[in-house]
Amino acid sequence: MDWKAEIEAAKARVAPYVRETPVITTQSFGLSHAITMKLEHMQHTGTFKARGAFNTLLSTDVPDGGVVAASGGNHGAAVAHAAKALGHDAHIFVPELAGPAKIDLIRRTGAELTVVPGEYANALAAAQAHEAKTGAMQIHAYDAPGTVAGQGTMMAEWEAQGLDADTVLIAVGGGGLIGGALGWLQGRRKVVGVEPRHCCALHKALEYGEPCDVPVSGVAANALGARRIGEICFGLAQAHLGASVLVDDDAITAAQVALWREWRILVEPAGAAALAALMSGAYQPEPGEKVAVLLCGANPAPDPIA
Amino acid sequence: MDWKAEIEAAKARVAPYVRETPVITTQSFGLSHAITMKLEHMQHTGTFKARGAFNTLLSTDVPDGGVVAASGGNHGAAVAHAAKALGHDAHIFVPELAGPAKIDLIRRTGAELTVVPGEYANALAAAQAHEAKTGAMQIHAYDAPGTVAGQGTMMAEWEAQGLDADTVLIAVGGGGLIGGALGWLQGRRKVVGVEPRHCCALHKALEYGEPCDVPVSGVAANALGARRIGEICFGLAQAHLGASVLVDDDAITAAQVALWREWRILVEPAGAAALAALMSGAYQPEPGEKVAVLLCGANPAPDPIA
Repeated sequence: MDWKAEIEAAKARVAPYVRETPVITTQSFGLSHAITMKLEHMQHTGTFKARGAFNTLLSTDVPDGGVVAASGGNHGAAVAHAAKALGHDAHIFVPELAGPAKIDLIRRTGAELTVVPGEYANALAAAQAHEAKTGAMQIHAYDAPGTVAGQGTMMAEWEAQGLDADTVLIAVGGGGLIGGALGWLQGRRKVVGVEPRHCCALHKALEYGEPCDVPVSGVAANALGARRIGEICFGLAQAHLGASVLVDDDAITAAQVALWREWRILVEPAGAAALAALMSGAYQPEPGEKVAVLLCGANPAPDPIA
Repeated sequence: MDWKAEIEAAKARVAPYVRETPVITTQSFGLSHAITMKLEHMQHTGTFKARGAFNTLLSTDVPDGGVVAASGGNHGAAVAHAAKALGHDAHIFVPELAGPAKIDLIRRTGAELTVVPGEYANALAAAQAHEAKTGAMQIHAYDAPGTVAGQGTMMAEWEAQGLDADTVLIAVGGGGLIGGALGWLQGRRKVVGVEPRHCCALHKALEYGEPCDVPVSGVAANALGARRIGEICFGLAQAHLGASVLVDDDAITAAQVALWREWRILVEPAGAAALAALMSGAYQPEPGEKVAVLLCGANPAPDPIA
């Protein structure tokens, strides 16, 4: 696939609907070098995921049944927001275990919401039943070309903003965001994938040579806890990924605290994972290497304004 | 006083120590027009007050006894941070009633900290006793030329960033920040002072024709609750202020919620007051009037990462 063309098309498509998120450069967090950070957590619904949702809906004939998603979190909120903005019905099936902060996040989008008792699998079954009954369409959270191309607009936008970095650190869940970045950059800059030690579907897949199921747990599991890396991301990572590093939950929490203490930026654990790789030394830049960090999500639990 | 020259000198002085804070433009918050916001709440210690503290310390022979302040909040944190960054001792006397979030904020600066039982007056008495004994210097929170000139660097910076606005809305406590803005702009743009209805020292002073004591209470009182507007601010406001408007606490809270919900910006009530004036209609721009809003503080209680 010509990812550069796909992402350029996506960028034009989503431009009226997504935010150009701010970029700051700072020497903070106890680091011995300056870093550039893109504040993508200020995107609509608090994560980059609005990009993929808008791109998919804008490049598809959405059926009369609208859109359906099973999600306990950021993807569901982004899909619901995009559907509403574009005048489509959206029905999100949320597992009860997602917790009140994420459930309220989706509820506030105005989408139809069904809270399904138990865990994610039950919500997925309910969503699939709804799809079969109504003809509503699903949007994959990370492993579909429209999703990856949409997330890739983040990287295209950052370069258009004048990104001055040799290396970009990005947290990895199912791989939609980093897949888009890899597809856009095609090796022109070093991309480092950062995963929590206990949510590391990409790292394990690279070790084993193909996507494989992994157990997921820990502080960032509700955002980065994909059981299996997407095929699209995996192919792009094999071709272009510069490094894959793991961070401990304690390091993620320390980065989350530092972002608030030093910059009054409040993110969820997933949003702090890429910074945690630098603060913990999991990724150590060479002398003079210019490093950029993506802050990808800001839907913490509990909600600070509950 | 030649405020433009004072502020230009202050800007050169503090440049190595303060952040150029980001600016965003958005149509959000249910408003029918776009606004520009400067995210000054991302300044060191979470408010603009670091500017005045650095300017004062950098333009003064700081005595061996260092710096002393009585403060239950943002000013104390800024003074302590600036003193530490410049190698001076700082001793902050905090009233117990300031509460754990603000006390911890000051504690984390590394300054010597004395929590004084009871209210602000007791902390002030303790600080004055310390000053008499040690020769430490005090930095006024708002009514001193060095403080006002330092806060004025915010407005100078915003213009250097390409501010495109007819009108700038700024929350008012003791008047250091808006005084600096008025001194810098000298009437070149319309400046609107926004005060909570129950912390309105400037509004009352303008009504009565001179600074007067006012009662203070409400959600923003620990940041905007000056009992009397500063003389410097009052003079500049009489000469240059475009409008003085009042907002209710409910409107402040609604703006605080909206900033988090729509932009993942978490501020304290004082930081949301200027936006509240637009959202509530307390200030209604003319058709086509370009409006800018300053977000001035982000030290909410409780601390979201306590």
